[in-house]
Amino acid sequence: MVLQKRFVLEKHFDGMPKKSDLKIIEEKLPPIKDGEILIQALYLSVDPYMRPYSRRTLKKGDMMIGEQVAKVIESKNTDYPIGTIVTCSPGWCTHSISDGTDVRKVKDFPENLPYSLALGSLGMTGMTAYFGLTEILKPKAGETLFVSGAAGAVGGVVGQLGKIFGCRVVGSAGSEKKIKYLKEIGFDDAFNYKSTIDPQKTIKDMCPDGIHMYFDNVGGTITNAALMNMTECGRIAMCGAISGYNAKSQSTIVHPPIVGRQLKIEGFIVYRWTDRFPEGFEKLKEYISQGKLTYKEHVTEGFDNMFKAFCELFTGANFGKAIVKV
Amino acid sequence: MVLQKRFVLEKHFDGMPKKSDLKIIEEKLPPIKDGEILIQALYLSVDPYMRPYSRRTLKKGDMMIGEQVAKVIESKNTDYPIGTIVTCSPGWCTHSISDGTDVRKVKDFPENLPYSLALGSLGMTGMTAYFGLTEILKPKAGETLFVSGAAGAVGGVVGQLGKIFGCRVVGSAGSEKKIKYLKEIGFDDAFNYKSTIDPQKTIKDMCPDGIHMYFDNVGGTITNAALMNMTECGRIAMCGAISGYNAKSQSTIVHPPIVGRQLKIEGFIVYRWTDRFPEGFEKLKEYISQGKLTYKEHVTEGFDNMFKAFCELFTGANFGKAIVKV
Repeated sequence: MVLQKRFVLEKHFDGMPKKSDLKIIEEKLPPIKDGEILIQALYLSVDPYMRPYSRRTLKKGDMMIGEQVAKVIESKNTDYPIGTIVTCSPGWCTHSISDGTDVRKVKDFPENLPYSLALGSLGMTGMTAYFGLTEILKPKAGETLFVSGAAGAVGGVVGQLGKIFGCRVVGSAGSEKKIKYLKEIGFDDAFNYKSTIDPQKTIKDMCPDGIHMYFDNVGGTITNAALMNMTECGRIAMCGAISGYNAKSQSTIVHPPIVGRQLKIEGFIVYRWTDRFPEGFEKLKEYISQGKLTYKEHVTEGFDNMFKAFCELFTGANFGKAIVKV
Repeated sequence: MVLQKRFVLEKHFDGMPKKSDLKIIEEKLPPIKDGEILIQALYLSVDPYMRPYSRRTLKKGDMMIGEQVAKVIESKNTDYPIGTIVTCSPGWCTHSISDGTDVRKVKDFPENLPYSLALGSLGMTGMTAYFGLTEILKPKAGETLFVSGAAGAVGGVVGQLGKIFGCRVVGSAGSEKKIKYLKEIGFDDAFNYKSTIDPQKTIKDMCPDGIHMYFDNVGGTITNAALMNMTECGRIAMCGAISGYNAKSQSTIVHPPIVGRQLKIEGFIVYRWTDRFPEGFEKLKEYISQGKLTYKEHVTEGFDNMFKAFCELFTGANFGKAIVKV
């Protein structure tokens, strides 16, 4: 008998998430049946999307949503022997039971890299960056790419891919330390949105030819400043809007440049390319092995600290892909 | 010697255009030189885009921008003998001189139709509707198309084309008379945005499968209500934003559904398809001759009434394509 620890929703988040909105429950899991496996979480992911999606998909008492890298510790399914490493999305829990249909084996993983990357640059956030950039923005060498939330899990990969594709890459992030890091990993320029008085002018100075492509992770003020700097027929990939997730009122974007500059805006969710993830995985692995793509993780130790790690996404206290190590 | 009457900018519009923002000037035109033609306006167009574009492109004393259908009344250019009918964009004026490079002959025009249609359903507004719908929204039979400003010059054509392409078509307009008209020309449903208390709910009721395509002429409240009713991966063509043209603050649109529903939004200006206008002309002419596309004009008599006709666009007093007959 194994004890499962899990976070369940007590109350939908309203404004900044509060500790009392979630509750940790401990429960004995039943013995596994034929065809089933028992898995134990090694690393769990916390991501901004969980904030809006929990409201849409969960009711009180439901387990908080999320991905993890886990290890099979008991098996009655020959496809998944004990020791198999998988990624899966049971939610915020230490242990779970699966019949094998909702887990994916972590295959061909580089030996020198931590499995946590299967949640980051070689997992969901890496796929988001790769397909959002290549399929929505379709970069051409010489174009200017602006990335908001550039030091985040997705933004850092997007910017480095932009450099691989020959673009001028400019980013925004929330601290001087993050700006320094962005320049280290190849961004041509970057600014701290928290200390910039006039982001529209700052972007104009850093993108003298205008923005051909904008990869948006934040929404709000920075997005409006970017929209005012787009080139004619500029392309915008809207990946997330973290600046508005805890806001009480609905966030908005400016309208006039969309018509006046003939902008093309597309919102997307990475799962539309699920069947192409193996292709993204191979590409990203190749870039990492060539040293063209570096990764940065912000690892929090201890399952009980999931909530703390989650909240840090919204204060910007994380630096790189936020991971919780059990 | 011919006297040209023209409207020039006295002061950029601020809020609703005021009569004193423009001034009528009379001036003698010089004799035409070899290669030139003298043309006389028959019909002039007033369109919402003139409001934002005048600010972008004109300075004090410049002639107000706009298209007209005109007749050659003197010619020293064998390509354009006296009596030739052309469309051109000299601005708001009764007469002008051209070297022939900036005028287009009105060719193959149906004998039973007024030349004013070369400014409407067979001209710029028709092209806007045709290419905006077919190139940006790419309608499929069975889909729901929502059109705002549906009784306007562009909207009325868009809706009827939507029916030709087999879509369910729903529209919004600003009076009961206009709603009645929309139903007469084939709209499946329509509502008066001025008397609708909850446009989001009204659209939901009229579009039970959600909106697959939204052709936006207005921006503002109706656009936000439409965005909240889009289907997953819905497409939006942003053609204009008349609701915001006279506003003191910049208009905005809601952000969350763009990411959450993976919407695809594209702003456009019809001139990107200039080289394909002959194709659009043939198609629209065919639909009109087949009785599948009707047209409605709102004709104001007298060049001096240009400003009045222009202002009526913003109060909704026009009903159909606004034309000034000289």
